[in-house]
Amino acid sequence: MSEQHTIEEFLDGLASQSPTPGGGSVAALMGALGAALVSMVCNLTRGKEKYANAEIEMTAVLTLAEATRADAMQLLTADIAVFEQVMGAYGLPRESDGDKNVRRVAIQSALKAATEVPLACARCCARVIDLSERAASAGNLNVISDAGVAVMAAFAGLKSAALNVYTNVRLITDAEFARQASHEIDALVVDAETKAPRIYALVKSKL
Amino acid sequence: MSEQHTIEEFLDGLASQSPTPGGGSVAALMGALGAALVSMVCNLTRGKEKYANAEIEMTAVLTLAEATRADAMQLLTADIAVFEQVMGAYGLPRESDGDKNVRRVAIQSALKAATEVPLACARCCARVIDLSERAASAGNLNVISDAGVAVMAAFAGLKSAALNVYTNVRLITDAEFARQASHEIDALVVDAETKAPRIYALVKSKL
Repeated sequence: MSEQHTIEEFLDGLASQSPTPGGGSVAALMGALGAALVSMVCNLTRGKEKYANAEIEMTAVLTLAEATRADAMQLLTADIAVFEQVMGAYGLPRESDGDKNVRRVAIQSALKAATEVPLACARCCARVIDLSERAASAGNLNVISDAGVAVMAAFAGLKSAALNVYTNVRLITDAEFARQASHEIDALVVDAETKAPRIYALVKSKL
Repeated sequence: MSEQHTIEEFLDGLASQSPTPGGGSVAALMGALGAALVSMVCNLTRGKEKYANAEIEMTAVLTLAEATRADAMQLLTADIAVFEQVMGAYGLPRESDGDKNVRRVAIQSALKAATEVPLACARCCARVIDLSERAASAGNLNVISDAGVAVMAAFAGLKSAALNVYTNVRLITDAEFARQASHEIDALVVDAETKAPRIYALVKSKL
């Protein structure tokens, strides 16, 4: 499943009995949707005489939004890969003590990867939230509602990615890794919960 | 732009200088993503001995989620059509008084359609929020986080659709239509703002 699939194929794949793609991929997709909407606001602001003062700002935001969109799309496929890595590790043989040891190490390694991917997704979505604020502040008023949709999509992506971090971090035996991951995701969630409603309200006030 | 386009094409179309697809289509897509994730939870719960008690409930939720997903995808394309209807109406000639009258009527008719589509989208997302609660309550614990992603996606879709209702309703001269649309969207938003955090917390408590 990748960005080359149709929307219908992606939705059918989600709804199906197959565990991938799942919520982790949707989290990344929502980040990408938010980033693309930020880009749209920039593209419909740049080059307009009325918004000449915003030209440099919108160009900078556009560059960052497009880079973030590319990151988010990479995480969509990475989420499927790490999920399969976890499933593969749990499926390893556990006959001998040697088997069990190999399996335990493989599971822990896979769980770390399956924590790092949603954490990276949450960071991506946090960047989109910040970019949506810049788009909402300086963007063309005719498309300002799209900055509001961007912030909601990225907020949903961040809170969705957080669920996968919470799930995997509990199974990780490396206490320091688990502590750092928990600490970071909690900070990202608290930050987003403060910013998202504020940015949405800013957009609403400009409609 | 439709469900037959690839994800990449849809995102590129969003990010581009073209005003469609835009936030209204993303709102509908987020409703569809939420509905598809509810279906996934149902599909990975049904037929499992451990969840035999949830079989009837999950079958009912699946049927409703799939119907809601189809509705949301129809609204994705409808959003583009009504946006173009509004643009077309504003583009009508306004030389004579007759022209102006025709144009005024066409604009008002288009604005009503461009209010009804996001209102229908918000209703769709509200249904997904309710279905995600049923999935979170009775679904397979191994995929319960997907019910949490579903509720966040649908919540973002609803709040996004609301922005388009707010925008268009202000331009509508039929005061009774505007009053009813405002009243309904406000009720949907208040309801969603109560339910979504509660359902997300339920999911988090079950991880």
